[in-house]
Amino acid sequence: MTAAIQGTAEGFASGQFEVACLPTPGAPPFIQAYQDQIQAAPGMLGLVREHEGDWDAFVVACHSDPHLDALREVTRRPVVGIGEASLRLASMLGHRFSVLVTDPRSVPAKEDLLRKYHLETSCVSVRPAGPPGHDQEERYLAAGRAAIEQDGAEVIVLGCAGLTGLDRRLQARLGAPVLDGVVCALIVASGLVRHGIAHSRLRRWSPQG
Amino acid sequence: MTAAIQGTAEGFASGQFEVACLPTPGAPPFIQAYQDQIQAAPGMLGLVREHEGDWDAFVVACHSDPHLDALREVTRRPVVGIGEASLRLASMLGHRFSVLVTDPRSVPAKEDLLRKYHLETSCVSVRPAGPPGHDQEERYLAAGRAAIEQDGAEVIVLGCAGLTGLDRRLQARLGAPVLDGVVCALIVASGLVRHGIAHSRLRRWSPQG
Amino acid sequence: MTAAIQGTAEGFASGQFEVACLPTPGAPPFIQAYQDQIQAAPGMLGLVREHEGDWDAFVVACHSDPHLDALREVTRRPVVGIGEASLRLASMLGHRFSVLVTDPRSVPAKEDLLRKYHLETSCVSVRPAGPPGHDQEERYLAAGRAAIEQDGAEVIVLGCAGLTGLDRRLQARLGAPVLDGVVCALIVASGLVRHGIAHSRLRRWSPQG
Amino acid sequence: MTAAIQGTAEGFASGQFEVACLPTPGAPPFIQAYQDQIQAAPGMLGLVREHEGDWDAFVVACHSDPHLDALREVTRRPVVGIGEASLRLASMLGHRFSVLVTDPRSVPAKEDLLRKYHLETSCVSVRPAGPPGHDQEERYLAAGRAAIEQDGAEVIVLGCAGLTGLDRRLQARLGAPVLDGVVCALIVASGLVRHGIAHSRLRRWSPQG
Amino acid sequence: MTAAIQGTAEGFASGQFEVACLPTPGAPPFIQAYQDQIQAAPGMLGLVREHEGDWDAFVVACHSDPHLDALREVTRRPVVGIGEASLRLASMLGHRFSVLVTDPRSVPAKEDLLRKYHLETSCVSVRPAGPPGHDQEERYLAAGRAAIEQDGAEVIVLGCAGLTGLDRRLQARLGAPVLDGVVCALIVASGLVRHGIAHSRLRRWSPQG
Amino acid sequence: MTAAIQGTAEGFASGQFEVACLPTPGAPPFIQAYQDQIQAAPGMLGLVREHEGDWDAFVVACHSDPHLDALREVTRRPVVGIGEASLRLASMLGHRFSVLVTDPRSVPAKEDLLRKYHLETSCVSVRPAGPPGHDQEERYLAAGRAAIEQDGAEVIVLGCAGLTGLDRRLQARLGAPVLDGVVCALIVASGLVRHGIAHSRLRRWSPQG
Repeated sequence: MTAAIQGTAEGFASGQFEVACLPTPGAPPFIQAYQDQIQAAPGMLGLVREHEGDWDAFVVACHSDPHLDALREVTRRPVVGIGEASLRLASMLGHRFSVLVTDPRSVPAKEDLLRKYHLETSCVSVRPAGPPGHDQEERYLAAGRAAIEQDGAEVIVLGCAGLTGLDRRLQARLGAPVLDGVVCALIVASGLVRHGIAHSRLRRWSPQG
Repeated sequence: MTAAIQGTAEGFASGQFEVACLPTPGAPPFIQAYQDQIQAAPGMLGLVREHEGDWDAFVVACHSDPHLDALREVTRRPVVGIGEASLRLASMLGHRFSVLVTDPRSVPAKEDLLRKYHLETSCVSVRPAGPPGHDQEERYLAAGRAAIEQDGAEVIVLGCAGLTGLDRRLQARLGAPVLDGVVCALIVASGLVRHGIAHSRLRRWSPQG
Repeated sequence: MTAAIQGTAEGFASGQFEVACLPTPGAPPFIQAYQDQIQAAPGMLGLVREHEGDWDAFVVACHSDPHLDALREVTRRPVVGIGEASLRLASMLGHRFSVLVTDPRSVPAKEDLLRKYHLETSCVSVRPAGPPGHDQEERYLAAGRAAIEQDGAEVIVLGCAGLTGLDRRLQARLGAPVLDGVVCALIVASGLVRHGIAHSRLRRWSPQG
Repeated sequence: MTAAIQGTAEGFASGQFEVACLPTPGAPPFIQAYQDQIQAAPGMLGLVREHEGDWDAFVVACHSDPHLDALREVTRRPVVGIGEASLRLASMLGHRFSVLVTDPRSVPAKEDLLRKYHLETSCVSVRPAGPPGHDQEERYLAAGRAAIEQDGAEVIVLGCAGLTGLDRRLQARLGAPVLDGVVCALIVASGLVRHGIAHSRLRRWSPQG
Repeated sequence: MTAAIQGTAEGFASGQFEVACLPTPGAPPFIQAYQDQIQAAPGMLGLVREHEGDWDAFVVACHSDPHLDALREVTRRPVVGIGEASLRLASMLGHRFSVLVTDPRSVPAKEDLLRKYHLETSCVSVRPAGPPGHDQEERYLAAGRAAIEQDGAEVIVLGCAGLTGLDRRLQARLGAPVLDGVVCALIVASGLVRHGIAHSRLRRWSPQG
Repeated sequence: MTAAIQGTAEGFASGQFEVACLPTPGAPPFIQAYQDQIQAAPGMLGLVREHEGDWDAFVVACHSDPHLDALREVTRRPVVGIGEASLRLASMLGHRFSVLVTDPRSVPAKEDLLRKYHLETSCVSVRPAGPPGHDQEERYLAAGRAAIEQDGAEVIVLGCAGLTGLDRRLQARLGAPVLDGVVCALIVASGLVRHGIAHSRLRRWSPQG
């Protein structure tokens, strides 16, 4: 998965800026449960603290956006989650969007994330794709079609970092924008860096030290 | 603070059930920043896993309700946060409530918590008390008065575990209900245990293992 | 129905406190229409005025929560509705809850009640059970299953006092919390009494005399 | 007050239709508390049942809109509350409106009414006028000015039937629309009657008999 | 369509006031796309400016309510849209309403309009009728039935001026109120004129000249 | 103003892409009233139609985002409004943001725009700067300070294209992010173009021809 994310990121950067996709020390290979997020936390904070002088911005490449609040406390560099970036861009590109997820059990957490971002009324559905075993692209194509035809979605968000790279083929087949969070986070992060903008550290993410 | 919480809890239990107030291994003495919550996480998960067979329910005695989601994944026993319990009871006891907090920087996190619980329209204000140095009771009395007179609050929630024990004197002086989260969480937890009810583990807090 | 409610209440109290289930003079046997609520009003106000010195708290055992506002004006004792208590506890025990009702015509009034409590976004559906004639437990089991599987409910609320006692068997068969309003109201009322908390009488429920 | 309401109504009707302002048997002279609403209920239901054959529509001339739900169950004629009519018309006539009320204690009930009608985000403030004793018009003028200048209101709603007749002078002095509920209810009721429209009796207000 | 609207309007006025249905110079015959609204704008503004001295109020007889904001800037006479009038009256006549539209592509714009009026939670569905070719009345009857039975609608709004005149037959067959925007706008406009009320010109629709 | 916008745009592009700032034929020099937007419409549609083959994306450099809906119907290229881009980025960079506007009369229209984008709960205030005559930077500095200190804003959005270029000095003096819509729109537009993403044309913005 790290390689796939790196590939997407380099494709977007196309040589205009440098990207490095670093695995989080101590994190489980896949973030599914809330416990998994906790297990990843110390490694994530450590990476950002260690590399604050090396990079202009940080992207959290998990669509659950774990620990964005804490990371923004520890660095003055922009920290962009692939969840937030893709959900916010989706709200600009169509009347309502749908988020495709890998597992029915992750629907509540995604709905909670949408509410945290005040986006619950912009999202028309969170749809799990069918169970693994069949072809991945076909399963997400079917879920995307259902979102468009049954829910009235006009934009599709891929709700998991593991789906990176699937956007363009789905977009061509669905005839609607399909958003890859890695790309969306890089749009935002590279743009912020270019103009010297970062998150506010006035109160919510104040350094507190 | 552990002793004060233990005192409040024993006062409420008054011998009808047993309570033990355990400090979280590895946690900072005071949870203020998002980073502090992360630091407390492994110890919290460990305590619940270790004691699942010993206790009928768990109360998280920090008004930020850190890690309730993850804790509910790891135990079938009720897990009640003093934040959630006090905020929900407050919504039953008056037209609108106000939450008193210790520091202006914690206002955004409290507002985020209210939104997570879908309570943002039931809460009329989150008010920081004046800076430490003066008498604690007087500072919270002044904040409570302002909440009632300027914001229209009818109920006051003490928004920090460190304020436990302050409720009754403030209630008498303000002439309005003042809620102590430790008491509220015990009302809910002891009631759930008595009838054999716990949180759902269907999807959001499914065991996932 | 009075006997069934008394039975549930005594079961929960299990001798630690006393409960008396009093029929409302002049009220129709079953509260279905808004007119029925009006017919019950004078008797309800009379009971509370008459017994204010005798009891520590009052529970309104009708899931429509009729006249809570007026009752709270006439007594300083806690007044808890089985509707409000069960709906608020439900919001703590799962991602979204569903309310099962007896009749399709009562759906709008229940939705109105949820809105009054600012709970409309925590409730995923109000579902009528099938028409009487078949076995009651089976009908509510089917409605509960539909709520879980089709609506994504994680918690079930029994939306009528007449269903008291059905909670535990449904809970066992559905594998999800099922809330009986009588139990929920007693959890809240007994807890409030134990610590000396009651509703605010500052403005909304001021004595006005 | 009955005479004043009758005067306003006849002024609006100006001979094109007939209006009769009937006092409610058994009701207190002024509806302030929730208890007062209950006391008025039997008389209100009785009046509507008795006169269903005589009149084309019913207006409830109390700005708290008591018992609209029950009244709509017992008659197929339009039942229009002066509260609802004035609040909904206000939402068409400016960006945000403010409601002026007679007593600070009635603010919560008015906010509850606005929420019942899904109008809480269209209303920018509920403002009590100053205490009686001074000139009535001057007190409401001052409250209206504060609503416009401090709250950004563009329309003023007179939140009590007792204020009927005050609208035109205030409108001239404030330079903004001022709505009298009696007039607004007659606009709606006479219009519905003219085209043969009434409330739905499908579910919420079904006859239930 | 102009003749049909004129017919409905005269039927409602029944000689008590005068109505004239004027076609908009330069407008396309049917307003479907956002571009069509723009094409109609200069003609609409021109008509209102030209006739301000001739008429007491203006009704915009397109259910998308194009350019109400701009029109209210240029005249002190009431300007009522058939969309807004019918949607607001619908919210008074039943628990939830549904809007029937002619084309699936117009659903998003109608949802946007509902949100502009803060009515999105009062509307239970926006339903396109089946494709043209079959009998118009039967198609809208089927859509109305689906709204009532599947969505829980209690009131139906005809979401296009081209449907004027269909309301009474549908109302009789559906057993629920069916609202024709032309009628609703005339109820509001004639009522406002009768009492001398118009929109606020304080800020949002200030003359700005 | 055109030169200032061109300057900001070229500064952000810094030679990596080409930008041209074209005045709209027939538009008034300054868009203040709703009528001004209408006057600008034909020229805006004409520009986009004429240049669809020449440019990869279009930015509407007016913070009221006029006619985005219609423009997205006529082109398959991304169309980004400086209002929407800056308001959405602001919601990622702090707990709540405030929008500074030039005139108290434009507050309602800005609030309406926020509601259209479902951003009304992310924005804590819309604040007009003091009247012209004093130094522009000082007036917006004072408004920004008030937004931060009195409203709790953590991010400031410059709510008018005419303020372009003011962001960096204000950001330095306020110690909080200050967003210039021209920059924000270019971040979004250039990012979308780079990866081949545009708005959905499924329903809301379908070509309709």
